[in-house]
Amino acid sequence: MRKVTIGMLGLGNVGSGVWKVLQDMSQELMEQHQVQLNVKKILIRNLRMDRGLVLPEGILTTAPEEVTDDPDITHVIECMGGEQPATDYMEKALKNGKTVITANKMALALNWRRLKGAAREGKAGFYYEASVGGAIPIIRVLNDSMQANRIDTVMGIVNGTTNYILSKMTDEKRPYEEVLKEAQELGLAEPDPRADVEGHDAAYKLSILSTLAFHKSVPYESIYKEGISKIQVEDITAGRDLGFVLKLLAIGKKENGVMDVRVHPAFVQENHPLATVSGAFNAVYLHGSACGDMMLYGRGAGSLPTAGAMVSDLISSLDSSSFDAPDSAPETLEQPAVTDNWRCGFYLRFSALNQPGVLGHITTKLGEHKVSISSIVQREAVDETGVPVIVITHSANEKDVQAALLTIDPKIAQVISVLRVEGR
Amino acid sequence: MRKVTIGMLGLGNVGSGVWKVLQDMSQELMEQHQVQLNVKKILIRNLRMDRGLVLPEGILTTAPEEVTDDPDITHVIECMGGEQPATDYMEKALKNGKTVITANKMALALNWRRLKGAAREGKAGFYYEASVGGAIPIIRVLNDSMQANRIDTVMGIVNGTTNYILSKMTDEKRPYEEVLKEAQELGLAEPDPRADVEGHDAAYKLSILSTLAFHKSVPYESIYKEGISKIQVEDITAGRDLGFVLKLLAIGKKENGVMDVRVHPAFVQENHPLATVSGAFNAVYLHGSACGDMMLYGRGAGSLPTAGAMVSDLISSLDSSSFDAPDSAPETLEQPAVTDNWRCGFYLRFSALNQPGVLGHITTKLGEHKVSISSIVQREAVDETGVPVIVITHSANEKDVQAALLTIDPKIAQVISVLRVEGR
Repeated sequence: MRKVTIGMLGLGNVGSGVWKVLQDMSQELMEQHQVQLNVKKILIRNLRMDRGLVLPEGILTTAPEEVTDDPDITHVIECMGGEQPATDYMEKALKNGKTVITANKMALALNWRRLKGAAREGKAGFYYEASVGGAIPIIRVLNDSMQANRIDTVMGIVNGTTNYILSKMTDEKRPYEEVLKEAQELGLAEPDPRADVEGHDAAYKLSILSTLAFHKSVPYESIYKEGISKIQVEDITAGRDLGFVLKLLAIGKKENGVMDVRVHPAFVQENHPLATVSGAFNAVYLHGSACGDMMLYGRGAGSLPTAGAMVSDLISSLDSSSFDAPDSAPETLEQPAVTDNWRCGFYLRFSALNQPGVLGHITTKLGEHKVSISSIVQREAVDETGVPVIVITHSANEKDVQAALLTIDPKIAQVISVLRVEGR
Repeated sequence: MRKVTIGMLGLGNVGSGVWKVLQDMSQELMEQHQVQLNVKKILIRNLRMDRGLVLPEGILTTAPEEVTDDPDITHVIECMGGEQPATDYMEKALKNGKTVITANKMALALNWRRLKGAAREGKAGFYYEASVGGAIPIIRVLNDSMQANRIDTVMGIVNGTTNYILSKMTDEKRPYEEVLKEAQELGLAEPDPRADVEGHDAAYKLSILSTLAFHKSVPYESIYKEGISKIQVEDITAGRDLGFVLKLLAIGKKENGVMDVRVHPAFVQENHPLATVSGAFNAVYLHGSACGDMMLYGRGAGSLPTAGAMVSDLISSLDSSSFDAPDSAPETLEQPAVTDNWRCGFYLRFSALNQPGVLGHITTKLGEHKVSISSIVQREAVDETGVPVIVITHSANEKDVQAALLTIDPKIAQVISVLRVEGR
């Protein structure tokens, strides 16, 4: 029987989950993996807070060095969240040779080199399965099951809050503000929801996913971000009628060595595997040269799903030969080429004059910019302000579409909404 | 740069794929994994067959010992298929200390102990990701990402041929024999289709999946098997109208230490993640104590998807510290308790007399056997033989349902079809 002494950083939602999983699974972990896991210290901020857990006397501490510097502790589970002080604590623990397991996508995406460098310096394992997709084992799959693949696309629904909001807006045809407020009341969205609804959280995760998928460092800053706060329910409904579902997608593509990395709302066809991922579920779709299409689906957040991924990481680390985390991300400082002129389909909604020649004007202007049309729908006017015209384009360059829209005469057709369409 | 010398057993569909992936990915494997893979010998049956591949002089052989006994060869990729002689060759290679990578679910499911024993004896790695779900990395996920979970359900669409046939029957409302014939003409079903359509192939895979998920040896023989050859398109259509999709499911459940392992057609609700898995795609759904619901989806067969999984296994084997494959399946001879009285929902179709009291008779007889009804639909008579009555039950014991059906008076209502309904 191997004994492992653990230190924990944080005992909030995820930390409590880790504690519960360690208690719940102790018998199985002994039987199946011949290991006994003991938590020696847990760093918290407030010693008096009631967490509803039965904890051994003296296990809680407010001194980080009691976790990061204790030579008895060989494994540190970081579940504080936030960039700092989590990054500093993890760095210290790694330099001290402790295996670190984290769910902290923000700290990781913003400090990838620093943390990986500390792991190398301390000859320490560094594991972060729980940082993307909660319980979904996408990190392990990218690192350990895709070696024979040249991955060209990784595309995910990786933020539960926005997926919940968009699913509700779609199913119940309710406006963004109303659904956000409800999500906040249910605890599914933060009081300050910007990290989720503006796409930052998804971009942290995309930085990690695309770095692993493409074997090139993809910094958070290089990712284009657009959130869901301006989405109008009219567009969701109109797209639905045309067979599309709106999702906040984290999209990574690589073609001829050039990256295309972006987070924005996008329509996917209703028969795409990602279209049925609703509510708080997450999914990551990928396409590789050998495997073809693949998708992993599961709970993207939550106390137990995240904690389970972290404890599984811990067990894996015990069987690993390499001190470093098993990943094939490069350590070079070379920045990848990132395009800002990606290709995808577009959904365009106009408010047009109700007179002959309007559709001709729109299609001509788009055609002049090499934007070809897949379908066009003119709807009945809802009021005197204009006739809704919806255009779905074939795959086109972002900049061509933007340029074409500038040449459409607003007195003839006003551009109301521009949304992207993804698929394959 | 590490050099690895490989021997291959077989150069059919999958073997050719392995050859192509090794050629195609050689540059990336050198850059990303610092490894150079060289195939020294390939065992084939017919030296004169044209495989459309450019192969080095002298690489082909008809003598198995040139692969299994060559001390230069450290890794053997088995892609012959079939139980024998594949099992004998793999055993020999393993005992000779060679890492073996296989896609052979039949050999593995029928000779699990023997092959694992040989691997132990030869201190050899034994990898079989490609044996279940083609490109879907379900073996690695079960072994390396679920350690913190008590898995209670693993449920898969793991046979592409039957999923293709059922999808076609569903979408095009065509009878089984016609769709089977078409699948045979397209090369999607074997001339002798029994291994697929009678559920044997799915049962081999379920034996492997449930052994890994439940940490108990689950022999192939203990699995209940029922195929799709008697499925009537009327039932698929009637189920569809009620919101269900028919799939050939490989179902493994464990409750209070008792296994429930079976392969049979089953309805799943149309919003279940498995319902949208159509055509030749495969998917494995599982439920664990920490992760909750999870699903992996991808190409279940095919030359490149299978080959990619095998080459990824090979690369993983190079980084592994343990000589044995990373799995937590037990080596004990203890047989698990397997129930033949599982619980699930049922779809029952009757041909009933068109007179008062018939529905009362059916519901009374079911009720007397503790089978409660979720919904009941009486349809218009299509001819004079009787009125179609369809009953969907709540979860009930298999034996109670079978017993209840025996008490229904065939002069009042004849039992036409009995299908199971799965979900969670």
